[in-house]
Amino acid sequence: MRVAIIGASGYTGLELIKMLISHPHFEITYIATTEGGVKASALHPSLVGVFEQEVLKADAKEVAKHADLAFLALPHQAAMGFAKELLELHVKVVDLSADYRLELEAYEKHYCEHQDKEHLQEAVYGLPEIHKEKIKAARLIANPGCYPTASLLAVLPFLSYLKKDAPIFLDAKSGVSGAGKKLSQTSHFVTINENIFAYNPLKHRHEPEIAEKIAQASGHAYEVNFIPHLLPVSRGMLVSAYLQTSEVIDAKAVLQSFYKEARFVRVRENPVDIKSVAGTNFCDLFVTQKGTSLFVSSAIDNLLRGASSQAVVNANLMCGFEESAGIPIIAYVP
Amino acid sequence: MRVAIIGASGYTGLELIKMLISHPHFEITYIATTEGGVKASALHPSLVGVFEQEVLKADAKEVAKHADLAFLALPHQAAMGFAKELLELHVKVVDLSADYRLELEAYEKHYCEHQDKEHLQEAVYGLPEIHKEKIKAARLIANPGCYPTASLLAVLPFLSYLKKDAPIFLDAKSGVSGAGKKLSQTSHFVTINENIFAYNPLKHRHEPEIAEKIAQASGHAYEVNFIPHLLPVSRGMLVSAYLQTSEVIDAKAVLQSFYKEARFVRVRENPVDIKSVAGTNFCDLFVTQKGTSLFVSSAIDNLLRGASSQAVVNANLMCGFEESAGIPIIAYVP
Amino acid sequence: MRVAIIGASGYTGLELIKMLISHPHFEITYIATTEGGVKASALHPSLVGVFEQEVLKADAKEVAKHADLAFLALPHQAAMGFAKELLELHVKVVDLSADYRLELEAYEKHYCEHQDKEHLQEAVYGLPEIHKEKIKAARLIANPGCYPTASLLAVLPFLSYLKKDAPIFLDAKSGVSGAGKKLSQTSHFVTINENIFAYNPLKHRHEPEIAEKIAQASGHAYEVNFIPHLLPVSRGMLVSAYLQTSEVIDAKAVLQSFYKEARFVRVRENPVDIKSVAGTNFCDLFVTQKGTSLFVSSAIDNLLRGASSQAVVNANLMCGFEESAGIPIIAYVP
Amino acid sequence: MRVAIIGASGYTGLELIKMLISHPHFEITYIATTEGGVKASALHPSLVGVFEQEVLKADAKEVAKHADLAFLALPHQAAMGFAKELLELHVKVVDLSADYRLELEAYEKHYCEHQDKEHLQEAVYGLPEIHKEKIKAARLIANPGCYPTASLLAVLPFLSYLKKDAPIFLDAKSGVSGAGKKLSQTSHFVTINENIFAYNPLKHRHEPEIAEKIAQASGHAYEVNFIPHLLPVSRGMLVSAYLQTSEVIDAKAVLQSFYKEARFVRVRENPVDIKSVAGTNFCDLFVTQKGTSLFVSSAIDNLLRGASSQAVVNANLMCGFEESAGIPIIAYVP
Repeated sequence: MRVAIIGASGYTGLELIKMLISHPHFEITYIATTEGGVKASALHPSLVGVFEQEVLKADAKEVAKHADLAFLALPHQAAMGFAKELLELHVKVVDLSADYRLELEAYEKHYCEHQDKEHLQEAVYGLPEIHKEKIKAARLIANPGCYPTASLLAVLPFLSYLKKDAPIFLDAKSGVSGAGKKLSQTSHFVTINENIFAYNPLKHRHEPEIAEKIAQASGHAYEVNFIPHLLPVSRGMLVSAYLQTSEVIDAKAVLQSFYKEARFVRVRENPVDIKSVAGTNFCDLFVTQKGTSLFVSSAIDNLLRGASSQAVVNANLMCGFEESAGIPIIAYVP
Repeated sequence: MRVAIIGASGYTGLELIKMLISHPHFEITYIATTEGGVKASALHPSLVGVFEQEVLKADAKEVAKHADLAFLALPHQAAMGFAKELLELHVKVVDLSADYRLELEAYEKHYCEHQDKEHLQEAVYGLPEIHKEKIKAARLIANPGCYPTASLLAVLPFLSYLKKDAPIFLDAKSGVSGAGKKLSQTSHFVTINENIFAYNPLKHRHEPEIAEKIAQASGHAYEVNFIPHLLPVSRGMLVSAYLQTSEVIDAKAVLQSFYKEARFVRVRENPVDIKSVAGTNFCDLFVTQKGTSLFVSSAIDNLLRGASSQAVVNANLMCGFEESAGIPIIAYVP
Repeated sequence: MRVAIIGASGYTGLELIKMLISHPHFEITYIATTEGGVKASALHPSLVGVFEQEVLKADAKEVAKHADLAFLALPHQAAMGFAKELLELHVKVVDLSADYRLELEAYEKHYCEHQDKEHLQEAVYGLPEIHKEKIKAARLIANPGCYPTASLLAVLPFLSYLKKDAPIFLDAKSGVSGAGKKLSQTSHFVTINENIFAYNPLKHRHEPEIAEKIAQASGHAYEVNFIPHLLPVSRGMLVSAYLQTSEVIDAKAVLQSFYKEARFVRVRENPVDIKSVAGTNFCDLFVTQKGTSLFVSSAIDNLLRGASSQAVVNANLMCGFEESAGIPIIAYVP
Repeated sequence: MRVAIIGASGYTGLELIKMLISHPHFEITYIATTEGGVKASALHPSLVGVFEQEVLKADAKEVAKHADLAFLALPHQAAMGFAKELLELHVKVVDLSADYRLELEAYEKHYCEHQDKEHLQEAVYGLPEIHKEKIKAARLIANPGCYPTASLLAVLPFLSYLKKDAPIFLDAKSGVSGAGKKLSQTSHFVTINENIFAYNPLKHRHEPEIAEKIAQASGHAYEVNFIPHLLPVSRGMLVSAYLQTSEVIDAKAVLQSFYKEARFVRVRENPVDIKSVAGTNFCDLFVTQKGTSLFVSSAIDNLLRGASSQAVVNANLMCGFEESAGIPIIAYVP
């Protein structure tokens, strides 16, 4: 099947390329950035001798001629303009931006005015463990954010056991690639090396995304307190979820049962780490408890499970392929 | 004043040497390890040309001849044997181990049988912001653990506002030097570089230390859930405290008021980071809140405020010197 | 084709597993360590849910029953004992240790007494760019060391132009995984993080390996000065070769011409870096010059091109498969 | 004595502040940047509660009113304009930029037109081990570059033994702080973390600085080949010098003899590392040899011995104080 990558210059664009080059069912037939006019290997020097294709200036009509499905790795706002056009031209879309993740009101409160309210209605939130059947039938996927992916996979199994009036605390730690390639004092090596700090505490845009999905799944508006930290690592993400159940449960059994069919979630015996998942689509989970207080630790690769490989899983499902076709499962360690 | 360092071979021993070399009132008159027979610069190559003193085999009677106060940077259990002898020989002791930190029952539950129950009674927990007057009068200081220091300084200001039945969650992150010099797969560069993971979740020995001090200060046995993580940095520690107050308070005002006299606590406007405190005795604190849910972020240098410089502050107070004499305040950044 | 991995517990063993799991022509039919009795995923936690095969106690006769070719990722000395048996049982061998890399005299001077002098004669040094035809016909491959691979690929193209009496200087930098999993003060995170230092300068065992191969290729015993450094990175290797030619040459043209047929060498326009090759079998090369003084910079993944992926390339060639079958070419960046 | 810091916003400005705050003879009476209008602790958050002085907009006349000596931590070109004015107003100057390091012709070839040719004549190159007497008498010091400091201290002891027609190879590795605070793709954490690469090979502006000082000291125009690399560490620098002597010498004895009076050079028994010097003004040196081929390894803190602490040593000498007054000798390790 012919696929397009729109937004090839960033880290998630590169990860899409790397997976799709050798995917058994997808073929990259169109690749573009906002600017175009450059070879893929000029954007990403590691691709020299591996993938030298010309990167075009993104044009929806051209996409429609050459591809059946498009991955959008564009900034929010830019993405919805492009997605709208593609959907009207009957191209399926997996959007890696935030544009179709939230309900209208929440989106406009936390981002900007929405320019594609029509398709927003039909967008499916692409967390395969939760919405697999809807994903299979969808033509527009809102690919979840990295923090929401790691957080929701930790929290959702326990929703029916949580104390309704107890806050959920999420202490999240992300590698620097999560902030993208753009330059900032924060991503300067000397700033973050040998360091760690919280940023946007209780104010990060992924907090409403997490809260909304928890509310949708549980029917209750839990208080979600989300605190992201920046870690001195290139990639990988670890989220600690601190939960309070209304009575004592066997947390590990609940977790194992919830994910017994999940191809890409591993319930671990020991605390999880980034290295065992970096380079893969796995989410590794660990839980321990003291009575009704639960600690759930969730590890993902922020660029893969938190973006690009989850996008390809969604595309696999949308197109009737095996969920795991072309999906990396072998970690980069050591 | 003449001081001894017993246990000079580890990281905290080295930090003691570095501070005491240039301390305005203390002079290192005795320095020892369990083994002895080596120069300080052979234990720590950075000391070549700086501090070449012979390191002796530790002997309490010799200490008593040469020093008025001893810093013990020994493993727990070894420390109490030595401290007992020194106190009987009228040498003041600042013990950096866990041996005098806990009440008897808790100590014997989490460590081993106590061998110096007599002096345990009189030991003062050396957190200067809380126990300054007692420290001044003490002859035996139990120097707090690194995690308890960072955690208690974050939690104590809010004790009178906390919901009694709500758990306290502490998500702590430490640099690798916190585990000491001994070799283990965990501290192997390839294991922890580009990684992060929880260890001993809800089972770390610093959890009862934190819980006991909170209970003593508040008169209520709060549930404390302590989750330490290992960070890919050499030194520094960040603790997130997640608290629930019984009603809405002005958390920042409470924090500022609590520490308005504190020389070595800085209440920050922005989230704190390790680099601003690494190399110093400062504890930097930041708080933000959503209604009755509080996030307090606490940063210290694990080897200094979490061990050696706090020990020297305690010694300063015990000897009638300025709290800040010889204490590092200039961070190593960048 | 059925292959065995003997020595599955180390970093190179893990890389072999990762490649061979999805190799188009090879199937892992036997996997062992010296001890055995453990699952592969217990040795390498990232393999949980990916490769759970039982790891056996290594036994040559059993290998011969189940496999046609064996990769030996054993320490030197242990390797040759095992290789000898396997060869007698008609199993092809790719030996990742040093045991068959050197001529007898050099081996015994720098390592120990040789226990398989017979097969040492027929071993082929597995640097595919140089010895491809011999490799195809071989049944015993001495897989080159990591430093020699990066160094020789930088130096060999220029051999016919070098000043005979000028020394060759090789300033090499390796990630910590090059030293293996075993614990040492050197590989302790706190030692090597934020650090770099030379080790075994002019005394590393890879120096005679490099010198011998240069002498064999050129017919002249060039003086080789090899200085390895340890880098604060997990994997990857960069070697600077400083060469002096007898007259001015067009060094870049020489390099490009030498490697014009090479599938796994990339001559780069800009200075090479580790990240563009880490995770792949590529050797990236860059050269610049001031008259007759040359600087050649050579980058490889020490565990792949410096060990395991080069071993699989050699196996591919020995078995008549495509050189590139199952060989990783997509770097892990960012 | 009253001193001014002009250019307080960068890494070297911060290091100057940190040393001068507690210097026994100097007092910071004027501190400025090009812009001014900010507190020092706003530029450098670690200074909150430590040094809160107002930073002014730099003005030479105001400097002359308040200070006897000025440290210029300005970009080249800006520095010479300011230095000229200060010298005319009888203020002594230690210039940390490149503006007075080179002879006129070389400067104008590698930088830009010189705007203060008059004072260029009298500027003294501030390498205390070589030019101590001239420094004592100087009123304008050209503080050496970081790479030249580490390189020259490695090479100069051997000048009288070198083969005249053999090139000198310098393989240098610097921490990222050497490139300053400004943002670039190169200093982005994700680029340089887990990486290393050469940059500006044979084209770095420090090459002519090194070559000129070697030529001045030896009377011979040695060919200098200088290859800098960027390391994934915040601070510290290691330079490998590869030298060829005309006959076999006892290299270690030569090195020890050359530096027998040097307060801030340590000749080491084992290969040197960054961590033993980071945070200090020491240059640690190690030499080993194979006949007439020498490997000299030189380690410094790029921001201290490579810039700010060497500047303070120079100021100490210019003002008749002890060379070591206020100079850091205790490394930050571990």
